[in-house]
Amino acid sequence: MCEQCGDRGKSHEEHVIHEPERRKMLKMAGASVLAAPLLGVLSPAHAKAQPAASALGKSPFAARAYGARSVGGHFEPLQIQRRALGPRDVLLDVLYASICHSDIHTARGDWGAPSLPCVPGHEIVGRVIAVGGAVTKFRIGDIGGVGCMVDSCGECENCLSDREQVCLNGTTFTYGSPDKVSGGHTLGGYSDKMVVTEKFVIRIPPGMDLVTTAPILCAGITTFSPIRHWRVLPRQQVAVVGLGGLGHMAVKLAVAQRAGVTVFTTTPGKIADARRLGAKEAVLWSDAAAMKRLANTFDLMISTVPYAFEAQPFMDMLKPDSTFVNVGLGEARGINPASMAFGRKRLAGSMIGGIAETQEVVDYCFARNIRPEIELIRPDQIDAAYARVVGKDARYRFVIDFASTKAQA
Amino acid sequence: MCEQCGDRGKSHEEHVIHEPERRKMLKMAGASVLAAPLLGVLSPAHAKAQPAASALGKSPFAARAYGARSVGGHFEPLQIQRRALGPRDVLLDVLYASICHSDIHTARGDWGAPSLPCVPGHEIVGRVIAVGGAVTKFRIGDIGGVGCMVDSCGECENCLSDREQVCLNGTTFTYGSPDKVSGGHTLGGYSDKMVVTEKFVIRIPPGMDLVTTAPILCAGITTFSPIRHWRVLPRQQVAVVGLGGLGHMAVKLAVAQRAGVTVFTTTPGKIADARRLGAKEAVLWSDAAAMKRLANTFDLMISTVPYAFEAQPFMDMLKPDSTFVNVGLGEARGINPASMAFGRKRLAGSMIGGIAETQEVVDYCFARNIRPEIELIRPDQIDAAYARVVGKDARYRFVIDFASTKAQA
Repeated sequence: MCEQCGDRGKSHEEHVIHEPERRKMLKMAGASVLAAPLLGVLSPAHAKAQPAASALGKSPFAARAYGARSVGGHFEPLQIQRRALGPRDVLLDVLYASICHSDIHTARGDWGAPSLPCVPGHEIVGRVIAVGGAVTKFRIGDIGGVGCMVDSCGECENCLSDREQVCLNGTTFTYGSPDKVSGGHTLGGYSDKMVVTEKFVIRIPPGMDLVTTAPILCAGITTFSPIRHWRVLPRQQVAVVGLGGLGHMAVKLAVAQRAGVTVFTTTPGKIADARRLGAKEAVLWSDAAAMKRLANTFDLMISTVPYAFEAQPFMDMLKPDSTFVNVGLGEARGINPASMAFGRKRLAGSMIGGIAETQEVVDYCFARNIRPEIELIRPDQIDAAYARVVGKDARYRFVIDFASTKAQA
Repeated sequence: MCEQCGDRGKSHEEHVIHEPERRKMLKMAGASVLAAPLLGVLSPAHAKAQPAASALGKSPFAARAYGARSVGGHFEPLQIQRRALGPRDVLLDVLYASICHSDIHTARGDWGAPSLPCVPGHEIVGRVIAVGGAVTKFRIGDIGGVGCMVDSCGECENCLSDREQVCLNGTTFTYGSPDKVSGGHTLGGYSDKMVVTEKFVIRIPPGMDLVTTAPILCAGITTFSPIRHWRVLPRQQVAVVGLGGLGHMAVKLAVAQRAGVTVFTTTPGKIADARRLGAKEAVLWSDAAAMKRLANTFDLMISTVPYAFEAQPFMDMLKPDSTFVNVGLGEARGINPASMAFGRKRLAGSMIGGIAETQEVVDYCFARNIRPEIELIRPDQIDAAYARVVGKDARYRFVIDFASTKAQA
């Protein structure tokens, strides 16, 4: 049992899965990690220990955040403004926010110059500490999750069909989007408090292990959505290309669908991890013989690779009428169109999922006890964690621990 | 009524749709076209006028063909060998063979050095003049069609699910494929006789207009298959990119499905044609304003473009969860992976269709009187026709007329 959060399924050491790497991180940061996972439902006594809910969010307020003031700049403590609660808004006391590779791309300007200051974070778990007058989905003390988006029009064809992520009037993403309510740009989950309209807050089931939940809100939904959309069936063959934050969730989720999973990685050290995560085979990209042997094998391939890569070898491993889904957003280069025509193969994109589907993946993971593998860090370790993600040294998600700070305070 | 073939739906002039271009062709070739379209069912008297069926195909025999002896070389008369009829073989007296852009790519070595001599032709209509002892699908006098393939293993997973075009043991294509029966490589329909196993010969319905049927065997099935596979529904919006042999069939077939069709062409002279073919709108690729206006419009886009092209403007016009099918085999360049992820868009390939589906498109076109638009040429005009196809001057398929030669003989 975890002595910190009471989880019977795991020891506390298992929450912090790679102790050597963790120690390396601690050494880099020159301080000790404060990790205090919490159970999904706080005891009434705990809830009462908070400041009176009635005073919170009545007017705009200052929140603490970690952000970069320049493109690719260091992360530092910032004071930011959060809006007063509207009638449908929920005020979240952020407990955990994890680091997605998209945060790094954004902060470093890989996808264009970010709005500054840049406060990333779109895998967020927090405790509801105040609600607007019309909120029905949450009560104070509930736990809520926020993923990649915080608002949409709610009226367009896509919103009405549960695809808020492609709102025709412009989805408001959790950070770096024009903020249609307060002006300026949105500021994400690397902060101690957030105000979000209730529709975009996911209900975290009571009893869920909170320290490992945040990555489900992006890495989980991003890989779950194609697995569901392309209807992966038991005994089908699924390839996961790239074993990082998204990739390791893709493995767990495809294994949960009882598919046969093969991992393709460039990192020899991840071969054993892939098997431990449930893959039946793991192959190095450099292993041309294995890739040739696997020609015409896969019913679905999910690439989580965030950089451009040569995609023809992967196309050759697809079965006819099957799909290579690129969720990592790296450019799939060098595909011969005839190789796609021959077998009616597809290259597809997929980006997160709608709010209903995000709720579904959270409930799915809770019901099956599927947990991202994480390493807890303090907010002042974000720069070091970014370097390790880029260096393929994350196993497999860094979770920024805001909970312990608060427990201390 | 066509005075040559008895077709009540069209005058003979309509079979040869662009008289000015035709005259230009005649001038280029310095001779007159001999065009003698035939009805699908020959009268018994006509059938009796042929050499006795019993003597034909008992042993390998010489056939006349038009082919290139070098890569990109001129087309010239050749004598080729056809095999003796096996028990399941059908001997076709070729009446019409049309020119597909693939023939040109192959003959000119665009897709690698072709086997020589190169005798293309995979849109073929012929009269059955002999059958093997075990043939049940055809009788002498029937009309048969041959498309892009002439054999497959018949036993693999793909063959057993009517996808002979992706036979796991290697489809035998109509020309340029290793010939597993006779050795060497296959020789296509630019010839006066062919021997094909009955399964790969399509039944041409009695009464079908033969002079316009050949292009259905490749251009028809290539565009029909994605329209059916991606289930185009009435009132959906379909884009056809490139208005040539394939594109004009895509328009006719999508219109037959009662979709709204928009054509994208680089040739101003084809704008009016697109409307005449049934498109509600035709847009020049250079018309950036129209393409912007059409953002997020199409349920299916079919590219018939045989050269590399910048595909991002087309991706932007797809609706979410929709597909851009590249049947033209030109490389779709420069697509931003995020633009595909945003809306879960797909880039797919598609290549012809299986034999059952090819029979389906022939029957579908016959039932709805859908006819390719063609221009008849003599076999000695192949070089000139190739130049006109490459110069985007085909309206919309050149059909090599072997029938008139035979009527003369």
